[in-house]
Amino acid sequence: MEFKVNSVELEKLLNKIIPAVPTRTPMPILENFLFDIKSGVLTIFATDLEISLKSSLPVTTEEEIAVVVPAKLLFEIVRSLKETDILFKVESNGKIHLLTDNGEYTISYLEAEEYPNVPTFPSEENKDEVVELELSGSGLKFAFDHTSFAMSKEEMRPAMMGTLLEFIEEGLRFVTTDGHRLVNLLMEGVGTDVHNQYIVPEKAVSVLSKVIDDQIVKVFLSKTHVSFILKDIELITRLIGQKYPDYKSVIPLENEYKMKVNTKELQNAIKRMMLFSTSNTRRVKFSVAENKLEISAEDLDMGTAGKENLYCEFDGEPLQIGFNAAYVNDILAHNTGEDELIFNLHSPTKAVIIRPVKQKENIDLMMLLMPVRLNN
Amino acid sequence: MEFKVNSVELEKLLNKIIPAVPTRTPMPILENFLFDIKSGVLTIFATDLEISLKSSLPVTTEEEIAVVVPAKLLFEIVRSLKETDILFKVESNGKIHLLTDNGEYTISYLEAEEYPNVPTFPSEENKDEVVELELSGSGLKFAFDHTSFAMSKEEMRPAMMGTLLEFIEEGLRFVTTDGHRLVNLLMEGVGTDVHNQYIVPEKAVSVLSKVIDDQIVKVFLSKTHVSFILKDIELITRLIGQKYPDYKSVIPLENEYKMKVNTKELQNAIKRMMLFSTSNTRRVKFSVAENKLEISAEDLDMGTAGKENLYCEFDGEPLQIGFNAAYVNDILAHNTGEDELIFNLHSPTKAVIIRPVKQKENIDLMMLLMPVRLNN
Repeated sequence: MEFKVNSVELEKLLNKIIPAVPTRTPMPILENFLFDIKSGVLTIFATDLEISLKSSLPVTTEEEIAVVVPAKLLFEIVRSLKETDILFKVESNGKIHLLTDNGEYTISYLEAEEYPNVPTFPSEENKDEVVELELSGSGLKFAFDHTSFAMSKEEMRPAMMGTLLEFIEEGLRFVTTDGHRLVNLLMEGVGTDVHNQYIVPEKAVSVLSKVIDDQIVKVFLSKTHVSFILKDIELITRLIGQKYPDYKSVIPLENEYKMKVNTKELQNAIKRMMLFSTSNTRRVKFSVAENKLEISAEDLDMGTAGKENLYCEFDGEPLQIGFNAAYVNDILAHNTGEDELIFNLHSPTKAVIIRPVKQKENIDLMMLLMPVRLNN
Repeated sequence: MEFKVNSVELEKLLNKIIPAVPTRTPMPILENFLFDIKSGVLTIFATDLEISLKSSLPVTTEEEIAVVVPAKLLFEIVRSLKETDILFKVESNGKIHLLTDNGEYTISYLEAEEYPNVPTFPSEENKDEVVELELSGSGLKFAFDHTSFAMSKEEMRPAMMGTLLEFIEEGLRFVTTDGHRLVNLLMEGVGTDVHNQYIVPEKAVSVLSKVIDDQIVKVFLSKTHVSFILKDIELITRLIGQKYPDYKSVIPLENEYKMKVNTKELQNAIKRMMLFSTSNTRRVKFSVAENKLEISAEDLDMGTAGKENLYCEFDGEPLQIGFNAAYVNDILAHNTGEDELIFNLHSPTKAVIIRPVKQKENIDLMMLLMPVRLNN
C-alpha cells in the first residue's frame, strides 16, 4: 500500500499534532501517531489520554489503511527534509519505507488496533447532551492568555488546576485561581441556554493558546469532554470532574481607594525589586500616597535592599501593603498590552483588585491579588 | 567615598568580565568582582583562579578605593536599569548605595585584601622570560573557531583538554585532539624566536572566542601563563603544565584517494542519518564510488534504517568506511563557511584527512577523523 505527501505540508501538520504526544508515559503506544487513510484523506491523531489532537490532509492514494508510527522519529525525519514529495510504502512485514529522490528511510509501524480510541464530537452517544457554540478565535486567545497564568499547580486541589468556563446570563466567564491570586474574565454576549460550569485542564489551555488564530472556533461541550474545532485542527480534552471552589466569596465588593499606575514602569521596578527581596518570600512593599508610589524590598540575610519611586494617581489615605513580587510581576507580564492599570485598595490585609484602565470590547477583566503581611 | 558611572557603559563592561566569575565554587570570594579605582579609572577584575578577566573605564572621582562586590547581583541590577548615571556611595560600614534618579539600591562589599592576586603581564618577575607577539583578531578567532571543538573532555588526559599553540619555523600551529579526531591549523608567517609549545585550557579558548573582534591581539607568553590583550579587555590564563601528545605520528602521510563533496549537502544528509544510527555508536557508513557517495545507517533494535545518495568527485577504487556520525557532523558544522571539502582516504581502517577545497589566506587547515569498524 502506498501514498504520497508533500514534506512541507506534512511537517506543518505534525508540528500541530505533536504537542499531544507525551514525552514520558508508562504507555509507549502513546508515543506514536495514528495515521488513518480513507477516501484520499490522511487523518493524523495523537493523544496522551487527557487531550487528543487530530488533523487531516489530502494524499494521493485510492487505498485505505490505519497504522501507528513513531511520532518523534517521523517528525524529525520530515522536518529534516527539504521540500520534496515523500512516497510512503507500507509493507506487510511491519515496515514503512519513505522514499524521496535521493533517500530511502525505513521505520517500523504497529497495527491501529493497539491505539486507544479517540472520542469524536458530536457522536451518536453524546449528541443529546452536547452543548454547541461558536467563539471568536481572537477572543478565546485573549481570554486564555490573560487567565491561564493563575491556574494552580497543586495536585491537592485538582479543580484549581484548570480554567473554569462558566456560562451565565451575561456571557461566558473564565476563572483561574491558585488561592493566592485569581483572574475573572467575562466575555460578554456569548451564550448558551444551559448555565453550566466546565473545567478545562491546563494542558489543553496551553496547547490551544499556541494553535488558535483569528478564525471562528467551534466548541462542543459534553459532561466529560470538550472539543475545540479550529480551521485545520481539532482538540478534544477531558474535563476536570470536580466542583470549582466558590470564587465569588473571596472577591471584596468595596475597595474604595484607586491607584492608577503605568504598567511598564511598574513592571521594570518590580523586576529590580525581585533582585533584593528575600528569595523564599519575594516580599515587596508598596507605600502608596498621593501622586507617589514607593516600592521597596530587602533581604536581611544578604544585606541588600532596594527602593524606587514611581508616579501614580491615588485618591485615598496613605497606605502600606505587601505583596509577593513574583505574583505582581505575573500580572504585569500578562498585561503588557495595557498602558495603565488601576489597583483598587482598601487596607494592608484585604485583597487588591486590579483592572486595566481601558477594557477590551465585550470583555470585563478583573485580577485579584492577596497581600502578604509586612513586618513592621 | 563616591564615584559616578553611566549604567550602559558599566553594563557593557560587566558583560565582558562576568564569564570569568565561576557559577559554582568552593571559594565564595570568587563570586565577586574586584573594583579598583585609581586616578579616575575604574578597573574591574574577575577570576576563577584559572582565567582572569580585567577591563577599565573612566569614572568621575578623585579618590582611590578597592572593594569586592557581588558579581551576579550587581550585573543584574545594572542590566535592569534604563540608561542613567549611577552614583556609587561606599560607606565604611560595608555597604554600597547605588543612587539613580528614582531609586536607591544597597549591596554589601568586602575588603579588597580578601580577593586573590591577579597576575600582571609583563611584570618585574616575568619580564625576562616572556615571549611577546601580535596576532590579527580575525585570524585568532578563525583558528579557535575551527579547532576548539576537537578538544578532549576527558580529565584523564589533561594536556588534551586544551589547545596546543606551537611556534615552529613556518608559523604558529594550533592543534586539538581527543584521540578520535584531530585538528591541525597552521597560521603561516606568524613567529617568535623561541620555538615553544603552550597549552591553553578550554575555558580560556571559549571565552576568547566570544570577545575577540577584528582588532590586533597582543599576546604575552610565560612558562606558566598567557595574556591576551584586546582593545578593551585583557584575559590571563594559566597554561596546562603537561606535555602534549605526539600528534604528528597519527597523521597518515599518504592517503591517495580524494573525494570532493558539498559541505552543506553532506551535513544535511548526516543529520538525517543520525536519526537512524544506533544511539551508542552513531555509526554511519560511507560507500564511495565514482561520482556517487551513499551514506547509510541503521538501528537494528529500533528496526529503523536510512540511506541517501549524494554527488561526489572520487578518483579511487570503490570503498566502504564507517564513522561516528556525531564527529562527522562536528567537522561539517565548523566548516559551514567552506563550500566544498576534500576527504583524503586510503582504506576502511586508516584515518581520513579532511581539508577545505579553498584554504583561507595564510592558513593551512587539516582535520583528521578515525574510522569505526563496519559489521560486514
